Amino acid sequence: MEVWQVWFLIGAALVFFMQGGFAMVETGFTRAKNAGNIIMKNLMDFCIGTVVFLLLGFSLMMSENYVLGLIGVPNLQIFTDFANFDFSGFVFNLVFCATAATIVSGAMAERTKFSAYCIYSAAISLIIYPIEAGWVWNSQGWLFTKGYIDFAGSSAIHMVGGITAFIGAAILGPRIGKYAMDRKTGKKTARAIPGHSLTLGALGVFILWFGWYGFNGAAAGGVAQLGSIFLTTTVAPGVATVVTMLFTWIKNGKPDVSMSLNGALAGLVAITAPCANVDALGALIIGVVAGVIVVLAVEVIDFKLHVDDPVGAVAVHGVNGIWGTLAAGLFANPNVPGADGAPNGVAGLFYGGGAAQLGTQATGVLAIAAWTAVTTTLLFLIIKKTNGLRVKPEEEIAGLDITEHGLVSSYADFLFSPEAIEPSSLPASVPGTEPIEKAVPVVRKPHPLPDSDFKFTKVEIIAKPSRLEDLKVAMNAIGINGMTVTNVMGYGMQKGNLAAHYRGVEVDVTFLPKVRLDIVVCKVPVETVIQAAKKVLYTGHMGDGKIFVYDVENVVKVRTGEEGYDALQDE
Amino acid sequence: MEVWQVWFLIGAALVFFMQGGFAMVETGFTRAKNAGNIIMKNLMDFCIGTVVFLLLGFSLMMSENYVLGLIGVPNLQIFTDFANFDFSGFVFNLVFCATAATIVSGAMAERTKFSAYCIYSAAISLIIYPIEAGWVWNSQGWLFTKGYIDFAGSSAIHMVGGITAFIGAAILGPRIGKYAMDRKTGKKTARAIPGHSLTLGALGVFILWFGWYGFNGAAAGGVAQLGSIFLTTTVAPGVATVVTMLFTWIKNGKPDVSMSLNGALAGLVAITAPCANVDALGALIIGVVAGVIVVLAVEVIDFKLHVDDPVGAVAVHGVNGIWGTLAAGLFANPNVPGADGAPNGVAGLFYGGGAAQLGTQATGVLAIAAWTAVTTTLLFLIIKKTNGLRVKPEEEIAGLDITEHGLVSSYADFLFSPEAIEPSSLPASVPGTEPIEKAVPVVRKPHPLPDSDFKFTKVEIIAKPSRLEDLKVAMNAIGINGMTVTNVMGYGMQKGNLAAHYRGVEVDVTFLPKVRLDIVVCKVPVETVIQAAKKVLYTGHMGDGKIFVYDVENVVKVRTGEEGYDALQDE
Amino acid sequence: MEVWQVWFLIGAALVFFMQGGFAMVETGFTRAKNAGNIIMKNLMDFCIGTVVFLLLGFSLMMSENYVLGLIGVPNLQIFTDFANFDFSGFVFNLVFCATAATIVSGAMAERTKFSAYCIYSAAISLIIYPIEAGWVWNSQGWLFTKGYIDFAGSSAIHMVGGITAFIGAAILGPRIGKYAMDRKTGKKTARAIPGHSLTLGALGVFILWFGWYGFNGAAAGGVAQLGSIFLTTTVAPGVATVVTMLFTWIKNGKPDVSMSLNGALAGLVAITAPCANVDALGALIIGVVAGVIVVLAVEVIDFKLHVDDPVGAVAVHGVNGIWGTLAAGLFANPNVPGADGAPNGVAGLFYGGGAAQLGTQATGVLAIAAWTAVTTTLLFLIIKKTNGLRVKPEEEIAGLDITEHGLVSSYADFLFSPEAIEPSSLPASVPGTEPIEKAVPVVRKPHPLPDSDFKFTKVEIIAKPSRLEDLKVAMNAIGINGMTVTNVMGYGMQKGNLAAHYRGVEVDVTFLPKVRLDIVVCKVPVETVIQAAKKVLYTGHMGDGKIFVYDVENVVKVRTGEEGYDALQDE
Repeated sequence: MEVWQVWFLIGAALVFFMQGGFAMVETGFTRAKNAGNIIMKNLMDFCIGTVVFLLLGFSLMMSENYVLGLIGVPNLQIFTDFANFDFSGFVFNLVFCATAATIVSGAMAERTKFSAYCIYSAAISLIIYPIEAGWVWNSQGWLFTKGYIDFAGSSAIHMVGGITAFIGAAILGPRIGKYAMDRKTGKKTARAIPGHSLTLGALGVFILWFGWYGFNGAAAGGVAQLGSIFLTTTVAPGVATVVTMLFTWIKNGKPDVSMSLNGALAGLVAITAPCANVDALGALIIGVVAGVIVVLAVEVIDFKLHVDDPVGAVAVHGVNGIWGTLAAGLFANPNVPGADGAPNGVAGLFYGGGAAQLGTQATGVLAIAAWTAVTTTLLFLIIKKTNGLRVKPEEEIAGLDITEHGLVSSYADFLFSPEAIEPSSLPASVPGTEPIEKAVPVVRKPHPLPDSDFKFTKVEIIAKPSRLEDLKVAMNAIGINGMTVTNVMGYGMQKGNLAAHYRGVEVDVTFLPKVRLDIVVCKVPVETVIQAAKKVLYTGHMGDGKIFVYDVENVVKVRTGEEGYDALQDE
Repeated sequence: MEVWQVWFLIGAALVFFMQGGFAMVETGFTRAKNAGNIIMKNLMDFCIGTVVFLLLGFSLMMSENYVLGLIGVPNLQIFTDFANFDFSGFVFNLVFCATAATIVSGAMAERTKFSAYCIYSAAISLIIYPIEAGWVWNSQGWLFTKGYIDFAGSSAIHMVGGITAFIGAAILGPRIGKYAMDRKTGKKTARAIPGHSLTLGALGVFILWFGWYGFNGAAAGGVAQLGSIFLTTTVAPGVATVVTMLFTWIKNGKPDVSMSLNGALAGLVAITAPCANVDALGALIIGVVAGVIVVLAVEVIDFKLHVDDPVGAVAVHGVNGIWGTLAAGLFANPNVPGADGAPNGVAGLFYGGGAAQLGTQATGVLAIAAWTAVTTTLLFLIIKKTNGLRVKPEEEIAGLDITEHGLVSSYADFLFSPEAIEPSSLPASVPGTEPIEKAVPVVRKPHPLPDSDFKFTKVEIIAKPSRLEDLKVAMNAIGINGMTVTNVMGYGMQKGNLAAHYRGVEVDVTFLPKVRLDIVVCKVPVETVIQAAKKVLYTGHMGDGKIFVYDVENVVKVRTGEEGYDALQDE
Repeated sequence: MEVWQVWFLIGAALVFFMQGGFAMVETGFTRAKNAGNIIMKNLMDFCIGTVVFLLLGFSLMMSENYVLGLIGVPNLQIFTDFANFDFSGFVFNLVFCATAATIVSGAMAERTKFSAYCIYSAAISLIIYPIEAGWVWNSQGWLFTKGYIDFAGSSAIHMVGGITAFIGAAILGPRIGKYAMDRKTGKKTARAIPGHSLTLGALGVFILWFGWYGFNGAAAGGVAQLGSIFLTTTVAPGVATVVTMLFTWIKNGKPDVSMSLNGALAGLVAITAPCANVDALGALIIGVVAGVIVVLAVEVIDFKLHVDDPVGAVAVHGVNGIWGTLAAGLFANPNVPGADGAPNGVAGLFYGGGAAQLGTQATGVLAIAAWTAVTTTLLFLIIKKTNGLRVKPEEEIAGLDITEHGLVSSYADFLFSPEAIEPSSLPASVPGTEPIEKAVPVVRKPHPLPDSDFKFTKVEIIAKPSRLEDLKVAMNAIGINGMTVTNVMGYGMQKGNLAAHYRGVEVDVTFLPKVRLDIVVCKVPVETVIQAAKKVLYTGHMGDGKIFVYDVENVVKVRTGEEGYDALQDE
């Protein structure tokens, strides 16, 4: 028996690794300004889950003292009688529990308060998941004893995560800019908010699929059963991905990358309940359907229901979790080997078993869905009333990395493009976030001369990026406190001196990175600026830079409305 | 026996994960504009492979009804007699099959039609791979029965992938800009097209190496054999990487990062065939040779043959696949333990076995290479004639993400540098992709005044990035339809208000991201523009922005050739 | 027994994969300009480690001929008697050895010479690690025979790595710009140098945690022991992460992302020694302490000791390595199952065992720390005197990718923001890296006319990025050799023609990427420039571009000090 106990733990480690996969999928499919926040949420739902599952969740779910098939009587055996505790069972159930919690974060990404996230993640792992999962997997659970098939959690984990995600996203409301009134038709239309790294998202999908062999296979009890699980866990997502690709190709004219990645996950979710009960043909059909409904569900949720689910968690986990669980009642093949290698004997509707198993499956789906819908709706409403669920609009626009975590950017060094926010979807308060009486008071200084007597000049300095900080200090020293820096590329004499190779080929760099510093002066003489810049930049080598001087007709400072001379006085 | 059957499946899961590794290596070593396309290809060759291997490939390869040692008689046992089907064998052989297919995508990256890719990937998994792999691994295969050593597929998988990659890349032709005529010597010279993410590429190599313990080890039948496989699978790539690093250091003056990553893969490919037959010394020598020949092969293929293989797939998989397979005939040590733990007894040329084994190895390499070369050449030529193999030049320049998948960028939010395309390598048709008669007709509007009576003015608005969309709408409202936006960084009074920390240290941000909107006006009065901008930007807080006004001497619109007033009339 | 031998190797593969995790953490937490260098170091310490461990390290550590409990007598059994060699033991010990070496690279990142790195990495794997690790794990080692508890290497691996990292970072000195004199207080203050990819860093942490199940579990001998190891290896980091999050939240006002990631690693390091000896409560307490001390240690090392450790390796591995090893003496529970499933019987201070075990733990920690401190100090000082340890300041500023590896960027295609280097921390030599007499001689050409007779004009060309190279060539052809290129976004008539979809939604692109070429001319007539640009850019389609012309008042070339006409003559 030892090999199965070791494999059970290896499987648990693979399921743990899926947390990394979820983190990559969710961060990749959302915007860079929230990347650190999403990482943090994915990390914390495993870690907070560990704490609460340790204290209460595990015994609620798996206690041998299980009441009425509904709930376990909590115990603290893990602390009081560690030597006889079911170590492996704890780790195994914890990693599954954390999966249910982590699904939610994707749908609620980019606008949920971090504190609210911590609270609901804890509540899911503390009570909501342990109770319904006990029905399914505690040997005294009422669904378990009815013969309900959910081998690895299409319903107990994915559907629960998906329903929670749907309710959470609906209560939160869409991200700013996600839906816009069409000016012509007056209808609400969905807008695309593309993710910031499809490669990380795709890596996440590969990690998830890899981990899924543990997710579906860990509880197998024999070689034949494990082999058939590996086979169905490969066929369903493989087929689903191909179907999603073809379906989007036909529908939209081009094969869609991010939907195909969702298609793979949809196939995996759908095969999770029936993985040990269906044959290759069943897995194939389950995959075909999963590949189609994930696309339709994404569109219905987005276009019709206008619930904003940035990563498609509801369509992938919720809709396909239901489909997969019901599919077990349709396609269960009684000849597929059970844990002992003998035919498991459970037959679905299309395999001569009548509607009995399908009825059991539907009962379980309804019961678990109802439990989840009621408890999570309450949970989110309570959080909304007390702690608050959503960040402020200006925080959402600035990004949750900086506002929730004080993190300037998860990608220091890189340059970002400004985001286009549809103004009609912005709350009215955003343009001026504070009432005018709170504005910084405008101090009018005595005006030395009429504006017409001043000449405004722009000095444009092109320099090496490494000299920027010194330039700034030098400009401050001569009284210049306002400037604009642009990354540019320079072409000129200073070329070909990089000694760079790529795969044995000399790299031919004609454009070198430079910074351009734009300074508009009035009081400070242009010559002073030029001399200060030359002093800082001079090395006597090619590439020291150039300075250009232009006439400026006028200058306006927006905050004060000042023009000309006054507009330039920042001190 | 159960532990070996479970390990066999764990090994298969590890090999599956290698798909993620290939995806990262191939996308990391190519350009960002094709990242989604490459991800999609890597995903689809596993998924399409699953479908076709299910329908035909597996039985062609592993059928018990195997004709003349050459080909299996197809059957649909997976559908007709699932309960007795070899589940594990199917999954195991499928993940290996998909590896052969995925190798090709790297060499043909950045210019192959997605539809063509789907077709040839299907053909490889449907027929080309199953037939030659059956020779090697079906117990009735003609190479198997001759005692051909290819434990995990240096020839059956990697060499096949590498040869297919070479033929495909040669028939496709190089990427635009990859080779240029040197203006002085008149010779074709290779140019560097650096990859967009070396970190993802490196991650891919670590994933591949990790997965390779499953790739080489999955079929082991005993502890001693598995241990010796792990040892050789560690020594060969470790040594190869060090050798590649030193070799590039000596040759080019600096240790090359991307070549060293290729060196690791070269060592892994080379040890794949002989991993269960050679000792530590054999693995070391195989690694040394692999580390050198991968560099030489990359250079010969690129500099001499001018076949453009963006990721080095031909050198890594093709050349080292051949080397590793032949090396088994040179270094097989008869004392290395076999599946039963007893010495396996196979001796190579340098271990007293004479040339017999080497002859067998050479025979296998030649036969498999010939089969692959003939079938894939035919395959690519047929695709070229019918579906077409390569995208249009303007699609290639724009990138396959947008043209093949309608994906604006796999990295929304990030800014990219414009690419330098060598004009002499561009087909003549690119500058004007359409004949002049198809150009957008130029509508000349009545000219209200002579040009000399107009003054052109540039209004430069510096604002917060989040106000950009509102600014655009406000400008549209006053009749301005053309503008240029630049990301700049502003330095001024609005500083130090970020409350940002990194690892406990307050982050000192002096430059804040801003956008600069450049508008050149003539008909619309400057004052109107300034008032509209002030209205949108005013909040009464630091950082509301500034507006600068400049004189413009002239304006030219390229398409129409109009100058001055006319050039600005976009409506 | 076979299952444990197979699991031992699977565990080794998981530990190998941790190399990829370290590579991602270290590169993610440092700057983009050094990404390739860090990848290369992480790759090479495994590969160089393989070579030297093969030749000497393994026998020094694990030789059966072990002298005085201190050191093994080297042998070359791996080459001379391969068939009877301990294959699995070699692979297992090698992957652990490489972990000790790789920890160091993070603390010394961004400023260490690559050649110096190769030397010290080799020395660690060749001698320093094998000797102390033999004390702990060779069954004849003096610490082993004393009953020292370090199941998986909190001290033998992590503390050794952490101490080496500390000494290395201290001898190297901080990165340029890491510490600055505060102008008011005159005190040295730490500055933030944010990492370039928190998502890759987080992925690395998930990979490390996943691999840690192998790291801690691989040597387990029974199901109960393995289960309890998995449990403690989950509880400690889970709790530590939550505690770090809360601690930073309370301390700094916001939950810190990168510190929480460090918290997870701290918990993993701390549980590594006692993973098979403590119960759930012990693991929980160990996690709580680890989560706090990692934050305090980062701050003491950074703020008080001013030792610059970019990734927190010293706090994570060094400090928590010590904590975890001592914790085994405090919390060892004698009822936790041993390898045979029976209670292992070892009791710590708080479990009735008195101070004996704690004393043994302290002895081991001191002995290993002393050995490491002495040998590595000597090692780094020798390297410093001979090969040199640190790159030149200008190399550090330019980045190690280009200077050490000739790699222009690990992220070709992306745009980077210029870095702000605090000038006061720059060595005085940087502004002019060469004495003035080495400056490029200034050649004064005859001056055709007085400056007042020249008019300087700026021509600003807005064009498609793909036309940049042709534009450059066309400008060269008419004698223009200096220009500046800026990436901008254009808004105008050419919109909505992308046919882009994202998740079924049509993407609404109003701003299209453009390049702006700025050319200032004097000798070349403006009209010539305009005609040349029009010729290159014209296609007759929307988006061909615009050209704007401005007056320029003056031009200064920094290197020569020339103004006006002369400043523009680059030929």
